[in-house]
Amino acid sequence: MPNREITRLTLYGDSISGNCMKPKWTADLLGIAYDWVEVDILQGGTRTEDFLSVNPAGQVPLARWPDGRALPQSNSIMLYLAEDAGSELVPADSFKKAQMMSWLFWEQYSHETAIAVRRFQKHYLKTPEDQIDPQLMARGRRALGVMELQLTYTDWLVGDAMTLADIALVAYTRVAHEGGFDLSEFPSVERWVSRTEAALNIPHAKEAA
Amino acid sequence: MPNREITRLTLYGDSISGNCMKPKWTADLLGIAYDWVEVDILQGGTRTEDFLSVNPAGQVPLARWPDGRALPQSNSIMLYLAEDAGSELVPADSFKKAQMMSWLFWEQYSHETAIAVRRFQKHYLKTPEDQIDPQLMARGRRALGVMELQLTYTDWLVGDAMTLADIALVAYTRVAHEGGFDLSEFPSVERWVSRTEAALNIPHAKEAA
Ligand SMILES: N[C@@H](CCC(=O)N[C@@H](CS)C(=O)NCC(=O)O)C(=O)O
Ligand SMILES: N[C@@H](CCC(=O)N[C@@H](CS)C(=O)NCC(=O)O)C(=O)O
Repeated sequence: MPNREITRLTLYGDSISGNCMKPKWTADLLGIAYDWVEVDILQGGTRTEDFLSVNPAGQVPLARWPDGRALPQSNSIMLYLAEDAGSELVPADSFKKAQMMSWLFWEQYSHETAIAVRRFQKHYLKTPEDQIDPQLMARGRRALGVMELQLTYTDWLVGDAMTLADIALVAYTRVAHEGGFDLSEFPSVERWVSRTEAALNIPHAKEAA
Repeated sequence: MPNREITRLTLYGDSISGNCMKPKWTADLLGIAYDWVEVDILQGGTRTEDFLSVNPAGQVPLARWPDGRALPQSNSIMLYLAEDAGSELVPADSFKKAQMMSWLFWEQYSHETAIAVRRFQKHYLKTPEDQIDPQLMARGRRALGVMELQLTYTDWLVGDAMTLADIALVAYTRVAHEGGFDLSEFPSVERWVSRTEAALNIPHAKEAA
C-alpha cells in the first residue's frame, strides 16, 4: 500500500472485517465515490510504516479525505457519511435516531466483542474449539437472542425501514456461522439477515463462503 | 424500587457505575429535571421483577419518560438529552461531531472494556491481582496512552471546548486508580480529569474515595 496522494474519500479496510465493510456498504448504498485501499491485517498491513503514518492507532477501518481529515471507528464513519448525505438511513425522528444510536453502541459493546471475536479466533486463527473462552459463545447467543426478540416484532431494528443499525449489526451476524453460531435457532434474525443483504445488494454470506 | 407511575424523565442507575453517571452528569449540567432511581447492581437490583418489567435487558443506565419511551446505553442517553436541548456539548460542526462520536464508540470498545472491567474486579469483587486477566492492565494502559497523546495537544478531546466525549471518558478515567492504574504516568490525562470534574462540578474522585 503506497502512501500516495489521495484525491477523494479513501476508505482503508480489510475485506474480511465486518467493521470495515460497514462504511463501504454505506458509501455504496448512498452512491458516494471513494477509493478502497485494502489493508491485510493477518499479513501485518496495519503495522506498516505507511499505514501507521495515516493512522497511528494502527486500526482499520479508517476514512480519509484529500484535505487531510481522517476518521476512525466503523460506526462513526457510517454515521458521518449518512448524515452528510442527508440519508434516511438515519431516522429523521429524534427518538428513533436515539434508538438507532443505542443499537450502534450495543453492537460495539455486546455483539461485536462476542461474535466477531469468536469468529476471528475460530475461522481465521483456527483456534481449537476447546481453547476458545466459553463466555464468547454464551455472550454471543445472548446477543442474538436480544436481536431475535426485536425482529420477531419488526422487520428492521428501528422503525419500519432499514437504518444504520441494520447495516452495523448485519456485518458480523451474517458471518456468525463462521464463529460457530447456529442462526437457525434465531429464525427472525436469519430472515432479517437475508432482507438486509438484499437491501445492501451483497451476496448471502453462507452461499458465498 | 417500587415500579410506580413516573411523571417526568426518570434515570435508573447505580451510583458506583461510571456508565450510569454519564447521563446524570449531562442532565445536571443541562439543567434537565429528572428523578433518579438507584438500582444496586451488587444487591441484584437489575434482576428484580420490577426492574426487568422496565428493562428486560436487565441493565442500567436506563432513561424512561412518562409516555412510556425508554432508552438504554449510557452514551446514547447522553447524546439524546444533549441534542434535544440543543446543547454545545455536541459540536455544531459536523466533522467535529463525528470526531466526538468516534471517541464515544472508542470509549465503549477500547476503554470501558479494560478500565471499568478491571476496576470492577479489583475494587468491587475484590479479585486478587494475580487472578485478574493481565490483558486488562495492558489494554487499559494503551487506552490511557491514546488519551494522553491527544490531551498533550488539546485541553479537551475534541476542539476547544468540553463535549460529550470528555464526559463519557472521564467517567471511568477518574476512578482508574481503583482499577490499579497509575494516572501519574499520564500527566495530561490527570490534568484533564481535574479540568473535567471542575466543569461538571463533581468532586475529585481520589479525594472523595
Ligand atoms: N471499534 C473499532 C474497531 C476497529 C478494529 O478493531 N479493527 C481491527 C479489525 S476489525 C484492526 O484493525 N485490527 C488490527 C490491529 O489491531 O492491528 C471500529 O468499529 O472501527
Ligand atoms: N454499554 C452499556 C453498558 C451497560 C452495562 O454494562 N451496565 C452494567 C452496569 S455498568 C449493568 O447494568 N450490569 C448489571 C447486569 O448486567 O446485571 C452502557 O453504556 O450503558
